[in-house]
Amino acid sequence: MTELGLIAAIKEMLGPAGGRVLVGPGDDAAVVRAHPLAVTSIDTAAEGVHFDRATHSATDIGHKAMASALSDLAAMGAQPGEAYASLAMPGDLGGDEALALAAAMADLAAAEGFTLAGGDVVTARSLVITVTVVGWADSEQELVRRSGARPGDVVAVTGALGASSAGLLCLEGAPAGVEQDTADRLAAHHRRPQPRLAAGRALAGAGASAMIDLSDGVATDAAHIATASGVGLAVELAALPVADGVTEVARAVGRDPRVLAATGGEDYELLFCAPPARWADVQEAGRRAGAPVTRLGVAEGAAGLRLVGADGRAIEGLRGYEHG
Amino acid sequence: MTELGLIAAIKEMLGPAGGRVLVGPGDDAAVVRAHPLAVTSIDTAAEGVHFDRATHSATDIGHKAMASALSDLAAMGAQPGEAYASLAMPGDLGGDEALALAAAMADLAAAEGFTLAGGDVVTARSLVITVTVVGWADSEQELVRRSGARPGDVVAVTGALGASSAGLLCLEGAPAGVEQDTADRLAAHHRRPQPRLAAGRALAGAGASAMIDLSDGVATDAAHIATASGVGLAVELAALPVADGVTEVARAVGRDPRVLAATGGEDYELLFCAPPARWADVQEAGRRAGAPVTRLGVAEGAAGLRLVGADGRAIEGLRGYEHG
Repeated sequence: MTELGLIAAIKEMLGPAGGRVLVGPGDDAAVVRAHPLAVTSIDTAAEGVHFDRATHSATDIGHKAMASALSDLAAMGAQPGEAYASLAMPGDLGGDEALALAAAMADLAAAEGFTLAGGDVVTARSLVITVTVVGWADSEQELVRRSGARPGDVVAVTGALGASSAGLLCLEGAPAGVEQDTADRLAAHHRRPQPRLAAGRALAGAGASAMIDLSDGVATDAAHIATASGVGLAVELAALPVADGVTEVARAVGRDPRVLAATGGEDYELLFCAPPARWADVQEAGRRAGAPVTRLGVAEGAAGLRLVGADGRAIEGLRGYEHG
Repeated sequence: MTELGLIAAIKEMLGPAGGRVLVGPGDDAAVVRAHPLAVTSIDTAAEGVHFDRATHSATDIGHKAMASALSDLAAMGAQPGEAYASLAMPGDLGGDEALALAAAMADLAAAEGFTLAGGDVVTARSLVITVTVVGWADSEQELVRRSGARPGDVVAVTGALGASSAGLLCLEGAPAGVEQDTADRLAAHHRRPQPRLAAGRALAGAGASAMIDLSDGVATDAAHIATASGVGLAVELAALPVADGVTEVARAVGRDPRVLAATGGEDYELLFCAPPARWADVQEAGRRAGAPVTRLGVAEGAAGLRLVGADGRAIEGLRGYEHG
């Protein structure tokens, strides 16, 4: 396949004009019918930093790049919109791999209700993928920022934590004593994270006051909410929902499972706050959206994040995964 | 400067919330008040392909990446909006260079009325910059597509051509007999192209029927309008406005200046069509926007691009610059 042929094949994966997309691929820019508010994020994944071609297939790489971008919109509670993807490809990326990577991006976008409305494909010295996602809202009240937490709010999280970082440990060499099925399942979490878009909208609608996606881990991301909201968040380490198999992997490598769950990145679950009066609604909304929520602690007056151990004492020095 | 310090410094260059930007940097996504139509393009520049750090300063690279993205919106006639920039940086890019690159992007965006509303900064194995630009329109009638040319329309171009490709030749080693001042001026055109945003809006408002920005050269880009519009475009090579100094450089390297002007890429001028009845208005609009326009030929019934030589015969085989 020639480079131009490859570019043409990838461009055919872009959604045609239709629905809200008035001008699709094939013009200088896409033209889309807007809602009153545009919610936009740009996110880049680079080989050797965010993924490794030795352990991630082209499909994994495309999926993860799109998932990571969409997760930012999940954390805002935005309605689905459009994705724009750029693929900077080195010469040793095969045509079939490039097509699989682009198809994985298009598939995940479509599954979440987004139209892949534009893109760029260029030659480069290393594989770098950038995804810009645009979601929509009809009013500011639909959206949840990081800054809305108030003292007394419940602090909670969707799903379970630690699967992605345990999966990465398994990819780097299955720890002794961990069953292959467990290692494979955890590795799949790392390779193909699922953004929580439906849950994000449901939690926003049910009254979440502040929200962030867990890309770097609770220890880092909860601190972002604390800072942006000017409140303290007291999170009990023992309350963290640890994903199946994480305990097994953590013990095999001599780490505390709950510390792994608190500091491991790329789970792409949602950490959020909600007023106590909305807690029952928020629980129900998460459950209906397929994302059961767990109470982790409470927002207090003193600013900053306080991770509390089983003995009731604060744990110092825990820091999330920095991936870029 | 630590990597996190650098990221923080670059993030500070992002415009704060204000005006139409309700949520700026520091949340999971930017939130912007929309117009009825969003006009969006994503554009990537990679080192070794679109620029070379040996011949382009960090400021050149940032400027050019932003200019190339904005030029797509110029060709649509969109109103200014927001830019979102991703910087994938190798370890050998110094902190000062990264800051200069980001500042050049922010400066050009601001000069054209765009807010740099979001970004991402990651480590990578090679330097890759992706810019997503969002412009706005209040109705479809404000915008110009590639597909609106009709038989009988005038074909025209803004500014003068060939300066960027002549400048690239000068960067690769000043051709013998070309004065240094000329070589420097042309090299500056290559390094810091100016997108034609004001001219694009003016031409759209004055009645342009189809428009494209000249990233690959007339020989390729005019063919895109011909294909999208289902018309033929007869362009007289002799009519091409050749930029000052291009003739000197072309002769020094044994090339025809007009062929260089027709096939050289990255001039970022606008090629457009307009009904004969609107030609006077379009000329005046270009002049007022600081972009004098030159008539190149006419749209006809037979599809495709026909480049016509001084002898009235079609010139075959000319193809624009493919930059990635």
